[in-house]
Amino acid sequence: MADHSIKKTLYSVIFGTNTPAGKRFDVLLIVVIIASVLLIMLDSIQTISIQYHRALYVGEWVFTLFFLLEYLTRIYCSPKKTSYIFSFYGLIDLISILPAFIGLIFPTANHLTIFRLIRVLRIFRVLKLVRHVDEANILLVALLRSRRKVFVFFSSVLVITVIFGSILFVVEGEENGFSSIPHSIYFAIVTITTVGYGDISPQTPLGQFISSIMMLTGYAIIAVPTGILTAELHHEMGIQRSSSMCPNCNRSGHENDANFCKHCGGELNTISSKEHG
Amino acid sequence: MADHSIKKTLYSVIFGTNTPAGKRFDVLLIVVIIASVLLIMLDSIQTISIQYHRALYVGEWVFTLFFLLEYLTRIYCSPKKTSYIFSFYGLIDLISILPAFIGLIFPTANHLTIFRLIRVLRIFRVLKLVRHVDEANILLVALLRSRRKVFVFFSSVLVITVIFGSILFVVEGEENGFSSIPHSIYFAIVTITTVGYGDISPQTPLGQFISSIMMLTGYAIIAVPTGILTAELHHEMGIQRSSSMCPNCNRSGHENDANFCKHCGGELNTISSKEHG
Amino acid sequence: MADHSIKKTLYSVIFGTNTPAGKRFDVLLIVVIIASVLLIMLDSIQTISIQYHRALYVGEWVFTLFFLLEYLTRIYCSPKKTSYIFSFYGLIDLISILPAFIGLIFPTANHLTIFRLIRVLRIFRVLKLVRHVDEANILLVALLRSRRKVFVFFSSVLVITVIFGSILFVVEGEENGFSSIPHSIYFAIVTITTVGYGDISPQTPLGQFISSIMMLTGYAIIAVPTGILTAELHHEMGIQRSSSMCPNCNRSGHENDANFCKHCGGELNTISSKEHG
Amino acid sequence: MADHSIKKTLYSVIFGTNTPAGKRFDVLLIVVIIASVLLIMLDSIQTISIQYHRALYVGEWVFTLFFLLEYLTRIYCSPKKTSYIFSFYGLIDLISILPAFIGLIFPTANHLTIFRLIRVLRIFRVLKLVRHVDEANILLVALLRSRRKVFVFFSSVLVITVIFGSILFVVEGEENGFSSIPHSIYFAIVTITTVGYGDISPQTPLGQFISSIMMLTGYAIIAVPTGILTAELHHEMGIQRSSSMCPNCNRSGHENDANFCKHCGGELNTISSKEHG
Repeated sequence: MADHSIKKTLYSVIFGTNTPAGKRFDVLLIVVIIASVLLIMLDSIQTISIQYHRALYVGEWVFTLFFLLEYLTRIYCSPKKTSYIFSFYGLIDLISILPAFIGLIFPTANHLTIFRLIRVLRIFRVLKLVRHVDEANILLVALLRSRRKVFVFFSSVLVITVIFGSILFVVEGEENGFSSIPHSIYFAIVTITTVGYGDISPQTPLGQFISSIMMLTGYAIIAVPTGILTAELHHEMGIQRSSSMCPNCNRSGHENDANFCKHCGGELNTISSKEHG
Repeated sequence: MADHSIKKTLYSVIFGTNTPAGKRFDVLLIVVIIASVLLIMLDSIQTISIQYHRALYVGEWVFTLFFLLEYLTRIYCSPKKTSYIFSFYGLIDLISILPAFIGLIFPTANHLTIFRLIRVLRIFRVLKLVRHVDEANILLVALLRSRRKVFVFFSSVLVITVIFGSILFVVEGEENGFSSIPHSIYFAIVTITTVGYGDISPQTPLGQFISSIMMLTGYAIIAVPTGILTAELHHEMGIQRSSSMCPNCNRSGHENDANFCKHCGGELNTISSKEHG
Repeated sequence: MADHSIKKTLYSVIFGTNTPAGKRFDVLLIVVIIASVLLIMLDSIQTISIQYHRALYVGEWVFTLFFLLEYLTRIYCSPKKTSYIFSFYGLIDLISILPAFIGLIFPTANHLTIFRLIRVLRIFRVLKLVRHVDEANILLVALLRSRRKVFVFFSSVLVITVIFGSILFVVEGEENGFSSIPHSIYFAIVTITTVGYGDISPQTPLGQFISSIMMLTGYAIIAVPTGILTAELHHEMGIQRSSSMCPNCNRSGHENDANFCKHCGGELNTISSKEHG
Repeated sequence: MADHSIKKTLYSVIFGTNTPAGKRFDVLLIVVIIASVLLIMLDSIQTISIQYHRALYVGEWVFTLFFLLEYLTRIYCSPKKTSYIFSFYGLIDLISILPAFIGLIFPTANHLTIFRLIRVLRIFRVLKLVRHVDEANILLVALLRSRRKVFVFFSSVLVITVIFGSILFVVEGEENGFSSIPHSIYFAIVTITTVGYGDISPQTPLGQFISSIMMLTGYAIIAVPTGILTAELHHEMGIQRSSSMCPNCNRSGHENDANFCKHCGGELNTISSKEHG
């Protein structure tokens, strides 16, 4: 039984956020994650990497062992082990510790790109933070609810950039840096999203004219995702605001300044209306 | 009669999306269109174009013949042939196949720009995709409904850029890259849409001051199209949401939390209100 | 009396848009304004200016005399002459014709900048177009109604750019292109409005860090003007939509689907509700 | 008693804005603050700084003594001296005068960066302007009310840029200017906020592809803060609009077109409805 109660306590501390211990563990984890990500960043700066090689190496292993311990504990106290392991968070937890061990197996200087890839993979542990952001859900719901529209929006933008990119490929040509259609589409995306690096830019008057049309298009259609999301969020918030329940019939949807339930006529708690007045 | 029924079946498969066969044909068509567009893109990359010349050539003709077959079948089974041929989609379907045949007639290396133009024209077949996006309509309706305002917005932006461009032409002059008024207007558009390539940028303090005013203007008036569309979409969605019908009088427009029809007093089905509560 | 009726007819044609003749005159004027602006643009392109010097010169004088005639007629048939002359449109009409005559008085090649200034001043005649855009009013009302907020917004942006610009002036210094505080503020405006020319960009890690904060600030506060205007426009449109009047008591403000006047109970014309259903 | 009444009068003039004297003092202060900030800007331009060294020096001391006098008077007539001194405005007032005196103590040419830092610190007196912008509050309330969402939004953007920046660091590498992860994150922020300086830009096709995804992401998620704030502001304004009070029961929250108080049934003043009709 002791084992079972330890499991339960551990579970409430590691997975829960309601107990003081759970909250303290959460804060500790957030601090460790951020510290660990900062270490990886520092490690990528060559001058620092060479000078503090030893300290960074030790620090990285301390963090890795901490995350390994966390991972094993999570598996240990999780009631449904496999469902945790293959969940989004389970995979992120695994990716946080794997690269360090893979780095042990493969000798370091073998292949630069793979070596760098493995090291940089560690930074995906920043995704462990997502677990601690509850509010992400509200935005996510609004986004998901309009996902068809968002998909249509992106498809339209892509079709527009394919057309414009191809036209510019013909008009400007390789001599002005528009070396292929994919590269011209890249330019069209840079333009229509109003990023405008300037690494390639139209040189001919006709190309500049077509680019101007593209810029104005991009400037105007940015309104589309904003409009969609605003309308969704407005609706979403409206629901949340009017969701205080009538103490008599337990139904919601009353206006903010209502004194009586619109469904049964029972008197409403007027606390929420005082909040705003 | 058999001919007539084949026509009808073909029509439902090619033009319709309700039958399983129609849906499968739609998916096939989308895949072929995207594959064909990707092939044109690859073909425009010189290294790939030279190395895989034969495969790309064969692939292009396979796609062209597929689209030719589709086009002829659409004409064959369309009840109003001429109205299909001269419709937006009919013309797009034609443009998808024409360039390949034009390329046959004209010898390739004759004139580089025309040759390139014809080849790139093929990419307009990406517009065939528009047929498959039903949701485009909702956005299109919102855009069309505010087209007068959008037109006014664009006219205003153009007037502003003409004024600012001309002022900068005087202030900066040819020595700083503002070689003509159209070119300066191009710069003004690049600035006011917040694209900012940096291919030309103001060099004199006065030019930078005027550009700063222009940037702040552009930063603020981006709110205009967004505001217009958001208000439209909000209204549009409001209509859709309140369009559940009264079982008694078949009229719609009830608020989300209404229990009784506002038109005839008949009791409403409260399923839709439970959906949100 | 004949003179009086000619004046009235001319007034209705030139100032009004209700009569067919008035509409035709409006369209003619718009075409002439745009043609005249295009001519000035072409004139500013050196190669064209040299080659077609004579044609452009003649064209410009034809347009100027047309606008002079228009200006004199407007004064002649205007009931309150001085109020027209000193109105916004009156001044714009004057500016459209003045530069050409000033150009006659001053010999051309005297002083390049003044000469260029006078020639470019002609382009202000593009503002004559504003007279023909009635819808500009709706947007203008929404903008004017929130002018205090817009002013506060711009002041805040300026204060933020002054602070950030000065910090970057210290951090980056003259050696990285931040040669003075005004120049650094120019950079801050380029950054916060997300224009990003790249003519100057932070070179030190600290400067890049501060710039990143500035970019994220600019990315977030663009929401402020959009939010203000959207809320205003939404309110504005709501008023317009509910402004159909009751045939009984002449009062407005009914909801779109109302069958009976909410003020007096009289039956409403249901045409507007059919429009949407 | 005389001393007490002087204090009170001074207090109403310096801290208040209701009396004519208080308003005049406010305007004077705003003019002096702006003039003083402009002087610091001019001082930072080397050519001007050398030529007008004496005048700028005198001007700076005049402004400093003015602000010193203002600061001492504020302390003198403030009823709660310490709470003023340690308030936000008290600290800003102190920072406005300190640098000049610190400049006296430390010899000028000692250390360039510190010297420059102290001089630029003076520009923080621009924050004294904030005291005079009452409307800042409305926007601030809307921002504060959605601060959790804004925080979540920024965290999400940072997580996205960390991931994308690291991927680009691997893909592009030092040879293309992506010298370290922090530097690559800087690039990711430049891209996702649509600033796009172009000081670094992706060179490999894969890097350009990933950047394109990032641009489209940034282009779409700009909708998030806008949507949040618009929904908040819309709600906020709705409250303000419906806050006209019933003359009978003094309660507010009536709709714009209501003729009778919804709380007590008393007839409402219909002035506000005529305002819009």
